[in-house]
Amino acid sequence: MKVRKVGVCVKPGEPELADLVRELEKWLLDRGLDVLPDPEAGRWTRADAMLRGDLAGSAELIVVLGGDGTLLAVARAVGARDVPILGVNLGTLGFLAETGRDELFPSLEAVLAGRFRVEERMRLDVEVRRDDESLGRFIALNDAVVSNTELSRMLHLETRADGSEVTTYHADGLIVATPTGSTAYSLSAGGPLLLPNLEAILVTPISPHTLTQRPLVLPGDCEVELRVIDSRGGQAHLTVDGQVGRALEDGDVVIVRANSQPARLLVPPGRNRFEVMRTKLRWGER
Amino acid sequence: MKVRKVGVCVKPGEPELADLVRELEKWLLDRGLDVLPDPEAGRWTRADAMLRGDLAGSAELIVVLGGDGTLLAVARAVGARDVPILGVNLGTLGFLAETGRDELFPSLEAVLAGRFRVEERMRLDVEVRRDDESLGRFIALNDAVVSNTELSRMLHLETRADGSEVTTYHADGLIVATPTGSTAYSLSAGGPLLLPNLEAILVTPISPHTLTQRPLVLPGDCEVELRVIDSRGGQAHLTVDGQVGRALEDGDVVIVRANSQPARLLVPPGRNRFEVMRTKLRWGER
Amino acid sequence: MKVRKVGVCVKPGEPELADLVRELEKWLLDRGLDVLPDPEAGRWTRADAMLRGDLAGSAELIVVLGGDGTLLAVARAVGARDVPILGVNLGTLGFLAETGRDELFPSLEAVLAGRFRVEERMRLDVEVRRDDESLGRFIALNDAVVSNTELSRMLHLETRADGSEVTTYHADGLIVATPTGSTAYSLSAGGPLLLPNLEAILVTPISPHTLTQRPLVLPGDCEVELRVIDSRGGQAHLTVDGQVGRALEDGDVVIVRANSQPARLLVPPGRNRFEVMRTKLRWGER
Amino acid sequence: MKVRKVGVCVKPGEPELADLVRELEKWLLDRGLDVLPDPEAGRWTRADAMLRGDLAGSAELIVVLGGDGTLLAVARAVGARDVPILGVNLGTLGFLAETGRDELFPSLEAVLAGRFRVEERMRLDVEVRRDDESLGRFIALNDAVVSNTELSRMLHLETRADGSEVTTYHADGLIVATPTGSTAYSLSAGGPLLLPNLEAILVTPISPHTLTQRPLVLPGDCEVELRVIDSRGGQAHLTVDGQVGRALEDGDVVIVRANSQPARLLVPPGRNRFEVMRTKLRWGER
Repeated sequence: MKVRKVGVCVKPGEPELADLVRELEKWLLDRGLDVLPDPEAGRWTRADAMLRGDLAGSAELIVVLGGDGTLLAVARAVGARDVPILGVNLGTLGFLAETGRDELFPSLEAVLAGRFRVEERMRLDVEVRRDDESLGRFIALNDAVVSNTELSRMLHLETRADGSEVTTYHADGLIVATPTGSTAYSLSAGGPLLLPNLEAILVTPISPHTLTQRPLVLPGDCEVELRVIDSRGGQAHLTVDGQVGRALEDGDVVIVRANSQPARLLVPPGRNRFEVMRTKLRWGER
Repeated sequence: MKVRKVGVCVKPGEPELADLVRELEKWLLDRGLDVLPDPEAGRWTRADAMLRGDLAGSAELIVVLGGDGTLLAVARAVGARDVPILGVNLGTLGFLAETGRDELFPSLEAVLAGRFRVEERMRLDVEVRRDDESLGRFIALNDAVVSNTELSRMLHLETRADGSEVTTYHADGLIVATPTGSTAYSLSAGGPLLLPNLEAILVTPISPHTLTQRPLVLPGDCEVELRVIDSRGGQAHLTVDGQVGRALEDGDVVIVRANSQPARLLVPPGRNRFEVMRTKLRWGER
Repeated sequence: MKVRKVGVCVKPGEPELADLVRELEKWLLDRGLDVLPDPEAGRWTRADAMLRGDLAGSAELIVVLGGDGTLLAVARAVGARDVPILGVNLGTLGFLAETGRDELFPSLEAVLAGRFRVEERMRLDVEVRRDDESLGRFIALNDAVVSNTELSRMLHLETRADGSEVTTYHADGLIVATPTGSTAYSLSAGGPLLLPNLEAILVTPISPHTLTQRPLVLPGDCEVELRVIDSRGGQAHLTVDGQVGRALEDGDVVIVRANSQPARLLVPPGRNRFEVMRTKLRWGER
Repeated sequence: MKVRKVGVCVKPGEPELADLVRELEKWLLDRGLDVLPDPEAGRWTRADAMLRGDLAGSAELIVVLGGDGTLLAVARAVGARDVPILGVNLGTLGFLAETGRDELFPSLEAVLAGRFRVEERMRLDVEVRRDDESLGRFIALNDAVVSNTELSRMLHLETRADGSEVTTYHADGLIVATPTGSTAYSLSAGGPLLLPNLEAILVTPISPHTLTQRPLVLPGDCEVELRVIDSRGGQAHLTVDGQVGRALEDGDVVIVRANSQPARLLVPPGRNRFEVMRTKLRWGER
């Protein structure tokens, strides 16, 4: 991998990471690489995630120091650019940030030597439309969730796939997830596990009022459309990757489709995908 | 059943019920009964539910014209009094208001002749405590729900039963339900069905983060205590019967135990409890 | 569609279908088509399904009179040939045999005029191996199930995907299903719904002993390997499409991968896939 | 606790337990107690479980060396006698046999000094009837399961509770469990957890064909009746506690009700019931 400019993104609000960041920058500079420091380091909040676009725009490799949450923010921020990302987990093992802190420098060495594999992860384009006008666009690596934030909880969501009526969900909300997102919120709501390299979109209802609903797995090239029919005097809300989003009104439509550019995560060559699942989900323990 | 004073409670915001209410009042007066009209009829909102206490305080029988929602409000409002309730369903068949509009007058006739059976339904006392001070008390016929209303969804809820630590739930929320409430929100969240005459308390997590959680059925004399450990910068909220409640802060404790006085619902003598479930849940259809 | 030879396959054990079969044969002959009658009609049993291969070997179109069960048997019997199948449902609406009896002749007219669409449905190759020797091969349109048939129920099944260890399931059994099969046995065992045109393999455990297991969706080009580790003194069995199969011993391996030739089902042009699901699963009813 | 005769029941087929048994017998004789050795020790098979009735008939305390399986067999064998049972777990922690091998002698000391608590566990009477004739009776501490053992899996089971029709289950089988049994097979089939001191009967379908089925919790004094309507050419079977049972034919009825005599398990005084669940079910781990 020919890399000259390395971006470093750091989990916000963790001043004790400063030493590690300096050590990492020195390590990179010693190898003749340019370092693009995270403009948000130490001050970053979730709402600022998109500001990282500048960094994402010129880096040829991004090292993320944090956890799955930080990596999700970076994976959205890189937008249409296909820069590879190395996620370094500073807390407990992540589904996304799979490199431990102890492995940081050996892993970087291996990445620069081209010994890491790029794993492409489908992302979602999420658009909110009101009366044929676009109110906002988001990129999701995990999921787009439409839910109700008020007392009177149940939402009515008319759902279409490639223009065909699927059903109208009566539920607390609906999760539209990538295969990567199948291990996130969808799993808590009762969804299945999808291998990350599957081309599919997972639709999981949250506490559906009808017993006959089940999670639904659609082909990856499907366009999913959710229309808020009735938020029952409550307040419908779109949440993307659990981090960003916006309020919705009755009649608003959320359109979800695969982003043409997947996220590119760097993983060690021998990584067994199921090993991560077994460890995180405690499979095999009885 | 010796009855002289009959309370009439009407679903709010339904002006087209006025004719039926007048017809019902005339029917009752013609039989020499006193009618206590609903002070809230036509103006009632959820927050006003407790105002009905006056009516509940002197009526010897309450006729509810509405649906399950109206009946829930009345069942809370009767408080410690043991007045029997006849629920008349004006919309689709309810789990609680089982008498159809067509059956209103024949059913009343049967009730006054003592031919209806009183079905006792366990209710819950729900108390919110902060630093050993009581912040409010509620009665629930269905359930008490502690959930998060903000983006960052997961709550941490330390749970005790009769003083013993149960577990700390990491979830969108937790439902503590009566057997009656097992067919309400708990069912959407994946809970089992409990026969209404069981003496038990049902604890169902909403979208639990850990796969090992299952709904839990405790003896009816158990005292359940939920402590909000960490609402993750969000906003925890207690909701009772989907209708009333209050905001919670980290450290607040919600204590739930059986109310000594059950609700008393009037049901036709031959009613098969499972028939209602079969009809509402569409059992037996394939 | 240029068709001269039409095979007619009939649900066995239904003598009252004789009139319909004669009517159908006359209709086809009147149009100058050759009719290949089902050699098994009226005598067919599940174990004989493979005998239909002859018919499947020369027909250019197969009309199935029966239900999903009959169509499953035919879809296996056609083996590697890509003959299109028109499923006519004589009982209740099927997931697979979507044409009603009343629509038989108009549908045939449309099929011969090329107005029906061919929907390709992934099938599975299922092979049983013992000590590197192949003990048998099956084709599945719905699923391959390994389960225990004895009192002592739990099986231990070591599972691999493309050679990587997935996990060892401790369960009553394991279902490996196509997207088509996601509406069959897998659904009863708690599996998600997969759109039939998805390229994926669904692995659903039956009554898993560990709470952390969830259904797993793998890419369609994945090779799944199940090894019977311990049938606990019971009797492990492979069942394909609920119809054929064989006994397994400890150490036996079942290998499942996509068949290179999908089944080809004829469907009306405007068919909305979700409409079938809504009708069969009673979505949208509350 | 005034005890003179102590029965010792040993897990069969474990010759390496001989030393421990001799040590235990010496310990008991040294304290002037009579020891009733297990006549089946070393030769015991599941079918012989009822032979233990003799031992159960005169012992005033039974020590079980084995695991949950051995304790289940003993709890059935004691029949109508109310002899207390101390379960010693020689393998991994059990739900029932909660005393570890290291704790054997200190626990016995405490039991004889009256410092252990007797926990009463509801048991089930299970009767099979054909044409008004009783074909057999069983006692269950965990559960009675009616399931199909043949290829064509689905059973049709008409179910009644106290004479009222509940529903007809179309499923692989049905589990009727005690609260104690809620952590056994019912849990694998998706059932809830019931506290062992609840008076309730849990009915959990196994892989139900209809999505609308949920586990059902009935009052403990309910009589449940299962009628095998159609075993679909397969073979229905009753299995009690996973250990004993008998074949069923179409039309056979299985009647389940609470046994008037609960099992009496000895537990240490400070035992927190939820701690066992947390450990066994890995609650609280994330």
